[in-house]
Amino acid sequence: MTDRAADIDILVSEVGPRDGLQSIKAIMPLEAKKAWVAGEAAAGVREIEVGSFVPAKLLPQLADTAELVRFAKTIPGLTVAVLVPNARGAQAALEAGADKLTLPLSVSETHSLANLRKTHEQVLAEAKAIAGIIAALPHGQRPHFEGSLSTVFGCTLEGAIPDAQIARLAEGLMAAGCDEVGLSDTTGYADPSAVRRLIGLVRGVVGERAVTGIHLHNTRGLGLANALAAIECGLDTLDSSLGGIGGCPFAPGASGNIVTEDLVFMLEAMGLRTGIDMDHLFAVRTQVAAALEGEPLYGFTPDAGLPKGFSPAAAQREGGLA
Amino acid sequence: MTDRAADIDILVSEVGPRDGLQSIKAIMPLEAKKAWVAGEAAAGVREIEVGSFVPAKLLPQLADTAELVRFAKTIPGLTVAVLVPNARGAQAALEAGADKLTLPLSVSETHSLANLRKTHEQVLAEAKAIAGIIAALPHGQRPHFEGSLSTVFGCTLEGAIPDAQIARLAEGLMAAGCDEVGLSDTTGYADPSAVRRLIGLVRGVVGERAVTGIHLHNTRGLGLANALAAIECGLDTLDSSLGGIGGCPFAPGASGNIVTEDLVFMLEAMGLRTGIDMDHLFAVRTQVAAALEGEPLYGFTPDAGLPKGFSPAAAQREGGLA
Repeated sequence: MTDRAADIDILVSEVGPRDGLQSIKAIMPLEAKKAWVAGEAAAGVREIEVGSFVPAKLLPQLADTAELVRFAKTIPGLTVAVLVPNARGAQAALEAGADKLTLPLSVSETHSLANLRKTHEQVLAEAKAIAGIIAALPHGQRPHFEGSLSTVFGCTLEGAIPDAQIARLAEGLMAAGCDEVGLSDTTGYADPSAVRRLIGLVRGVVGERAVTGIHLHNTRGLGLANALAAIECGLDTLDSSLGGIGGCPFAPGASGNIVTEDLVFMLEAMGLRTGIDMDHLFAVRTQVAAALEGEPLYGFTPDAGLPKGFSPAAAQREGGLA
Repeated sequence: MTDRAADIDILVSEVGPRDGLQSIKAIMPLEAKKAWVAGEAAAGVREIEVGSFVPAKLLPQLADTAELVRFAKTIPGLTVAVLVPNARGAQAALEAGADKLTLPLSVSETHSLANLRKTHEQVLAEAKAIAGIIAALPHGQRPHFEGSLSTVFGCTLEGAIPDAQIARLAEGLMAAGCDEVGLSDTTGYADPSAVRRLIGLVRGVVGERAVTGIHLHNTRGLGLANALAAIECGLDTLDSSLGGIGGCPFAPGASGNIVTEDLVFMLEAMGLRTGIDMDHLFAVRTQVAAALEGEPLYGFTPDAGLPKGFSPAAAQREGGLA
């Protein structure tokens, strides 16, 4: 959790405008993106990954990320997160004013070469360069800098990645100057036991305080079970996507990312405060669905509705039930 | 778990032929049902709820339950389970040779009256009558008798049900002569915390050994997270449905029941042996899909496929990884 607010227990970090939109061919107009970000922030979402600083010719859907960051920065209390593939992207993110930068490092070198065209050492060199740029800023202007271990639960090209390699890369990210190391189930290979095991492995290398967040997919339907395992390990930041858009959908009814709406329902039902108002969130879903024109949205809770007599976590706590 | 086999850790109890088919208007021919049951048994499924002994005019889809029980009883090693609404149904189930009888008792009396047209006391009287019929049988011929607390996580009519009422009914089922008490999330209201809390509540009344199984729905997408919570409490019998058919689907992509294929993947990935061969199970799915002619099947793993280099639980154990 980038910013540990006292009134929430779990930070739900919305990644739809980045991870969702990069998977959709149509380009969402900037005004619709702004309405989405503003809508979720008004619903109580505290952190949103609004885009990625990659070349516009690679991801034209995210070409307006700098403008969206500048808009999002006008929303009080919102942590504005972005993905950066390298130091050049980080520089652009800082100029736009992003609060949090995430640099992905695929623990599968085959995947790293295929995806970012960089070896592990080259990505670690970028991490070091980014940390250097950040360190040169005045203290109050430094963004949070996360290195994210992608394909950490296994790679579609290499299969399982050796623990020693994962440990070495987690250590490398911290040595390069990251504030924390995230885990990312890029391929949807995770299961609850693997979630626990990998969190333990990486914490064993970089310390407990440097592992607080996880990015899970729902490719095999285990997204929320994996999220539960992560929470039980004490992680307090979970990425998810409104309507589950993005990730790698294979099957009809299968969303790539875990669905923000269902995740928030699970957490609030469990008495874990997210700060998010669900009816408001469902209204944003309707608005985003309209902007996405025919793209399928996933998730069960918006259609099923909340249980009769449902109490969100804050109300449970007031009633002494939590 | 009705029959604690030493070579499995979790008993996946397939309920599709009962809970699934009763939700589908079309009547599956007996031969197709037989192929389904035989196929899942050959894939390694150890317990199948093949039908319900309710009047054929109420559920014509299950009118051939007695014949299906007799067929399933010819399959070595398979526990043949059925649902019975009353003593008359139990008598018919015993004549057909069922190994396990489940009597549902809705902890919401409003739901009980709407669904079974019986008060709590009337259902408990049926439980007592069934236990009497079973007790009159020779020891080796007595089936396992489960009383299942339905709507235990809340009712769409009444909302939350008071703990004291749930405790009284659990006690009532055991006093009537049930061998164990199951929990059933009829409405899809459960969350992982509620699963833990209710298991604790009911165990506190009837003892740990009398609570081993749970019937979960996936109405709000939390099915596998709830299953994980139940396993962590030590439950070892989980109901699920091939392709997720049945239950109360509300949303596109939403299955009512938890999906056998995804559940088995989660358990095996976690190193928990189910005895089920996944490729064989996926083949049965294809066969059932053909028999169901256009009914949607749910679940993610069959389409996504198994992770590269995936090891089922038994192989993990041999390799010393579990």
